[in-house]
Amino acid sequence: MKNTISATYGGMAQAYRRALLDDVIPFWERHSVDRGCGGFFTCLDRDGSVYDTDKFVWLQARQVWTFSMLYLELERRDSWLALARHGAEFLARNGRDAGGNWYFSLARDGRPLVQPCNIFSDCFAAIAFGRFARATGDEAAKEVAARTYRNILARKANPKGAYAKAFPGTRPMVSLALPMILANVTQELEWLLEPADFERTLDACVDEVFAPFLDPERQVLHEHAAPGGQKLDCFEGRLLNPGHGIEAMWFVMDIAERRGSRALADKAVEVALRTLELGWDAPMGGIFYFLDAQGHPPQQLEWDQKLWWVHVETLVALLKGFRLTGRRECWTWYERVHAYAWGHYPDREFGEWYGYLNRRGEVLLPLKGGKWKGCFHVPRGLYLCMRELEKLAAGPPAISLP
Amino acid sequence: MKNTISATYGGMAQAYRRALLDDVIPFWERHSVDRGCGGFFTCLDRDGSVYDTDKFVWLQARQVWTFSMLYLELERRDSWLALARHGAEFLARNGRDAGGNWYFSLARDGRPLVQPCNIFSDCFAAIAFGRFARATGDEAAKEVAARTYRNILARKANPKGAYAKAFPGTRPMVSLALPMILANVTQELEWLLEPADFERTLDACVDEVFAPFLDPERQVLHEHAAPGGQKLDCFEGRLLNPGHGIEAMWFVMDIAERRGSRALADKAVEVALRTLELGWDAPMGGIFYFLDAQGHPPQQLEWDQKLWWVHVETLVALLKGFRLTGRRECWTWYERVHAYAWGHYPDREFGEWYGYLNRRGEVLLPLKGGKWKGCFHVPRGLYLCMRELEKLAAGPPAISLP
Repeated sequence: MKNTISATYGGMAQAYRRALLDDVIPFWERHSVDRGCGGFFTCLDRDGSVYDTDKFVWLQARQVWTFSMLYLELERRDSWLALARHGAEFLARNGRDAGGNWYFSLARDGRPLVQPCNIFSDCFAAIAFGRFARATGDEAAKEVAARTYRNILARKANPKGAYAKAFPGTRPMVSLALPMILANVTQELEWLLEPADFERTLDACVDEVFAPFLDPERQVLHEHAAPGGQKLDCFEGRLLNPGHGIEAMWFVMDIAERRGSRALADKAVEVALRTLELGWDAPMGGIFYFLDAQGHPPQQLEWDQKLWWVHVETLVALLKGFRLTGRRECWTWYERVHAYAWGHYPDREFGEWYGYLNRRGEVLLPLKGGKWKGCFHVPRGLYLCMRELEKLAAGPPAISLP
Repeated sequence: MKNTISATYGGMAQAYRRALLDDVIPFWERHSVDRGCGGFFTCLDRDGSVYDTDKFVWLQARQVWTFSMLYLELERRDSWLALARHGAEFLARNGRDAGGNWYFSLARDGRPLVQPCNIFSDCFAAIAFGRFARATGDEAAKEVAARTYRNILARKANPKGAYAKAFPGTRPMVSLALPMILANVTQELEWLLEPADFERTLDACVDEVFAPFLDPERQVLHEHAAPGGQKLDCFEGRLLNPGHGIEAMWFVMDIAERRGSRALADKAVEVALRTLELGWDAPMGGIFYFLDAQGHPPQQLEWDQKLWWVHVETLVALLKGFRLTGRRECWTWYERVHAYAWGHYPDREFGEWYGYLNRRGEVLLPLKGGKWKGCFHVPRGLYLCMRELEKLAAGPPAISLP
C-alpha cells in the first residue's frame, strides 16, 4: 500500500516536472526574449507571437526570479542564468527612478511609461535581484535587492504615496496584499537580512496577515479592513479574493515549517480549506475570482471568472498543507483542483497554460501572457508542486511537523 | 401605409413612456432616497434593497439631472423637483473641495472618501446643477454649474492632475471620453454660456472627438490616441469601446441637428453604424463592452459582457440617426437592438433594468444600481427614445435635415 501511494506521488511529481521542463519553460525561452532591446516580451498570444511590446516591471522581475530560482534549485543550466541576466540588466538599466522606486511599466526600449505607483513592482524586483545575486554572486545585484527591500519597508505605511486617492481619515483601511507578499519576499531575502530583523519581520507579517483580515468565525481572509481589524461594510471591506487568501496561507505554511510550528501550520491549512469551500463554484467547478463576504454583488465584473494563478497557488497550498499536517481534506481537495486545473488550463496544441476562463471554464482570452500573466505562477507552481510530491513520495505526510 | 408606420412609432413611444413612468422612475423614487442623511442610495439590489451606502458623486449628480430634466421636459411634478433638490442640497453641502473640485465619492453622511481624481464627477455635477438651476431659477445652483464648467475647461488639458500616473513625455495620449462628454455637457449648459463661446466650444468638441480618434478606413473611434491623431499600438491605443463610440455619435447628431448640418449627421450615423457592425456579437447577440482594434486580447477581463448603458445609448443613437437621415440600416439595427435590450434587461418581477449580463445574455450581477449604475442611462434613454418615436410618429424621417 505504501509503495502504491509513493508511486502515485512520484508519478504526479514526474508529470509536473515534464510540464515545467518540456512545455512551460521552453515556451518562454522560445518566445519571450527581446534580443533587440533587452528584457522580455510578456504579451504573448496563444501561439507565442508577440502582440504588445510594453514591459511591465512586475512581469520582467518575476521572469528574472523564475530563471534564477530554477538555476539555483533545479539545475545549473547556463542558458537559464543567461536569461535571468538578460532581464536583470534591462531592469537595472531602466527600471528605477532617482529615488530607487520601481516604475510600473516601461516602453519596449526601456523608457518609463507609468510612474512608481505600485509597491508590488518593488516587491517583485527585490525577489528577482535577490535570487539573481545568489545565483551569480553579483554584488551590485545584491545591493539592488537590499536597497529595494529597505525602500519597501520605508514605504509600507503609505504604499501608494502621492498616488493615493483615499481622503485622509474618513475610512482608514489596510490591505492584505502587502503583508502577504512581504511574508514571501522576506523569506526570499533571508540571506540578506540580520537574523533578528528577519525573525521580527516574519512575526510582523504573520500578525499583519491574520489580525486585521481574518473573519474568526468563517476562517477566511478579507482583502481590506480597518487598521484595528474591524470589518468594514463597504465594497472594499466586504471583498474576498479566495486565490489571494489561499496563496497567503502557503506563505504562512512556509513560515510554520521553518519554525517547526504545527499550530501555525494547522491554522493556515484551516483557513486555506475554508476559503476553498467558500470560493469553489460547485455547479460549474473552479474557484471564483472575487466574492462579497455578505453575498452582495461585488464591484468586480470579472468576479465569476476562473483564473490560472488562483488554481495554481491553490495546488501548492493543498500539497504543502497535506505534507505538513496530513489532513485528508487537503488531499481530497487537491485531487479535485488538480483535475480542474489540468483539465482546463494547459493548451495541448501550442503549449503553456491559458490564463483566463469564463465561469463555465471556456477560454475567455487565448493569451499565454499579458499585462498580468507572465513567466511566474505556472512555473513556480509546477516547480513547488513537484517538490512537494517528491517529498511525499519519500515519506508519509506530516513528517515535518510533530 | 403611412398610418400603419405612424401607429408603430406611436405604439413604441407609448411603451417607452410606460417603462419610464410606471417602472423605472418609481423604482428610484421608492428605493433610493436617503431620508436620514440626504442624497441617494444607488447600490440597490434586485428588489431595491440597499446593500451599500457609499455615495458616488457621478451617480448622485446624474440622479439630480434626471429628476430635473423630467421636471423640465416631461411634466412639472413637484415630487420630481423635490427629489432633485434633495440630491442637489446634499451635493452642494458635501461634494466639493476648497478649490471647487468634485470628490469622487462620499460616505453616507457626506464626508469625503475619494479625492477629486476624476473629472467626470465635475462633468455630471455641472449638468446636474445646470438643469436644477433651470428648473428652480436658483441663482446659487446656477453659479455652481457655471463655476464647475469653467473649472472643467481649466483642468481639461491635464484632467487627472496630481493623480496622473503616466510618465511625462514617453507616450503622450488623449482620450475620447472627455471631449465626448463635453459635447453633451456644453449643449446642456448653452443657456449659461456666451453664444460665441458656446459655438466655439462645440466646434472644438466635434473636432476633438473625430480628429484624433477616428479610424478613417473603418470609421470607428478609438478610445485613446496620440494628441496628433496617430493610432498607438499599445493596449490603450488599440482599445475600442463600442458603446462609448455610439453614445458620442448621438451627442454629435444633436449638434448636427441644432446646426442643420446633414453632412455632420451623415458622418455621425455612419460611425455609429460601422461601430455597431464591429461591436455586435453575431452568434450570441448584444454589443461587446470592449474590443481590441487589431483583434488581440483586450486587457479588460469584462470585454465580452453585455452592459445596459451600451444598449440603451445605441437605441438613442439609432432612432436619432433614423430621424435625421432616414437611413434604413438605422431602423433595421434599431429593431435588432431593441429586441435584445427589451428581451434581456428589464426585470419583470422587481422592476427596473439589470445592468450586467455575461456574453450569453445571462444576468451576471442582479443589482439595479451600484458604483456605476444609477438613475441615469435607463431613464434618459427611455425618455429620449420616446421623444424620437413621437417625432417619427408625427412625420416621416429626415424631416429635420435637408
